[in-house]
Amino acid sequence: MSLTVVGSVAFDALETPFGKRDKLLGGAGTHFALSASFFTDVRVIGVVGSDFTENEWQVFKRHNINTDDVEVVKGGKTFFWRGRYDYDLNTAHTLETQLNVFETFEPKPSEESKNARLLFLANILPMLQKQVREQSEAEFVAMDTMNFWIDSMKDAVIETIQVVDCVIINDAEARQLADEPNIHKAAKKIMEIGDLRALVIKRGEYGAALFTKDNYFAIPAFPLESVFDPTGAGDTFAGGFMGYLASQVEITEDALRRAMVYGTVMASFNVEEFGTERVDRLTQDEINERFRHFKRITHFEEIPFEQSNSASK
Amino acid sequence: MSLTVVGSVAFDALETPFGKRDKLLGGAGTHFALSASFFTDVRVIGVVGSDFTENEWQVFKRHNINTDDVEVVKGGKTFFWRGRYDYDLNTAHTLETQLNVFETFEPKPSEESKNARLLFLANILPMLQKQVREQSEAEFVAMDTMNFWIDSMKDAVIETIQVVDCVIINDAEARQLADEPNIHKAAKKIMEIGDLRALVIKRGEYGAALFTKDNYFAIPAFPLESVFDPTGAGDTFAGGFMGYLASQVEITEDALRRAMVYGTVMASFNVEEFGTERVDRLTQDEINERFRHFKRITHFEEIPFEQSNSASK
Repeated sequence: MSLTVVGSVAFDALETPFGKRDKLLGGAGTHFALSASFFTDVRVIGVVGSDFTENEWQVFKRHNINTDDVEVVKGGKTFFWRGRYDYDLNTAHTLETQLNVFETFEPKPSEESKNARLLFLANILPMLQKQVREQSEAEFVAMDTMNFWIDSMKDAVIETIQVVDCVIINDAEARQLADEPNIHKAAKKIMEIGDLRALVIKRGEYGAALFTKDNYFAIPAFPLESVFDPTGAGDTFAGGFMGYLASQVEITEDALRRAMVYGTVMASFNVEEFGTERVDRLTQDEINERFRHFKRITHFEEIPFEQSNSASK
Repeated sequence: MSLTVVGSVAFDALETPFGKRDKLLGGAGTHFALSASFFTDVRVIGVVGSDFTENEWQVFKRHNINTDDVEVVKGGKTFFWRGRYDYDLNTAHTLETQLNVFETFEPKPSEESKNARLLFLANILPMLQKQVREQSEAEFVAMDTMNFWIDSMKDAVIETIQVVDCVIINDAEARQLADEPNIHKAAKKIMEIGDLRALVIKRGEYGAALFTKDNYFAIPAFPLESVFDPTGAGDTFAGGFMGYLASQVEITEDALRRAMVYGTVMASFNVEEFGTERVDRLTQDEINERFRHFKRITHFEEIPFEQSNSASK
């Protein structure tokens, strides 16, 4: 009854119009795990260097995230990314990437990690995603990927899609993967590639859509007047989505829909401050309050129009 | 108990990846009126030339749209627009505009038009919009505008916003008008300019948002695998929105929300075929069926997460 994620644990350096940070805890695995930890027990498979300090480990500990499968490479340096966001905050401009210990990362899942009920393959080399998936007993496996892998090794991405239940990607990646500009046609193609149970397409400030075999569900984004740091928003979404699903006895259409909303809610918190800062001190009450707020801003009563009850005829 | 619209009645010529048409009935006033006619009695204020034939008049007649205030300029030619859409269908490329009789258009609302309960000022010169508004007794007045007027006569646009109740524009126009990239901040500014009751921001394939004094409401677009001709989608949205409101005894928050959905539904039909072709032969049942479908694809149950009822703890 738990959730395993394999993904990067990293340090980020950021420049945004609102400020600058030289060293933030980051990485897809980190953002995902932190977000999911509000809903379920989480285990992380990853690798860090010996520059990873007690401060960083404490973030995981505070949220009862199991890090037994995070390998520490002695003398090694943790994956480092430096990026810049301009005023529109939509596009991350990479200024520097040091793969460091991540370059030779070989995921070594423990029995406990293999036995988790759900598994998330964050954005790493597709062959490694597939390896981890094949060792896992999980009943529901989701994956992310990125434009770089779709460009450089599309076949490997497709082979990985074929062994998972769910893909969670953004709309540009979906269009690229399916080579199809219409997002609904692209979704259909991707669903077929993998015989998927679910496909989640994230559209940033425009919301997100869920495609399942027989249904479609779409929601807007949570309205935010200021986005401070969008780094990790997608992984935080995926963490809320998978974490919520892990908390449910059965993965039904209804559960998937609520998972979409929890993903949206978690991502909306993540972007309010730098790095993991906001999510790190979130409470369950704040999450549920925002969930209820989201319901209020998307709800309408289904009263079909009839000429007979109209004021005008 | 009716709705008046002032706006263009035009001929369009179109080139799209799906085909070409030399002469389609078009214009903001036309698309709006046709869409609204499914919900309420509609009157159009506009102008055409003597090239406007019985075929075109029949479209209005079929839908009981009153055209007494559509002036016919003898020997004049009707407003003509020729455009091209490329494969992505997001941007209209104007190839030719002949204002013709529209160049010297002076709206002359009859008493009946002035007395309509609702008024829509489609995208025409802001000074003309203001003139028509000032002659009207309507209890709820909405307007559209466009980037061209915001660029060339922003003050006039603002003066018109100050005498209406509701603005219906797209997101690029909202950002431009408020000079603010964040759509929620932009909306706040525009609401304040006009002390508006409602602001509708249309986001094309991403849906639409409704801002009112105390509330926010957002919906995704209706999912469409193929968009055939997006011309008039915005006006068809506005027609569904205002038409539905005109059919309601009171313009409440709930009515505004359902009006957003009816606007979305009507626009989704409009883009399925060239010009007014699809909407012209729509039925009330088709509209309500798509409204119900829209409810199904956006609905989720509000069951807040609790550790205690979770499967994982």
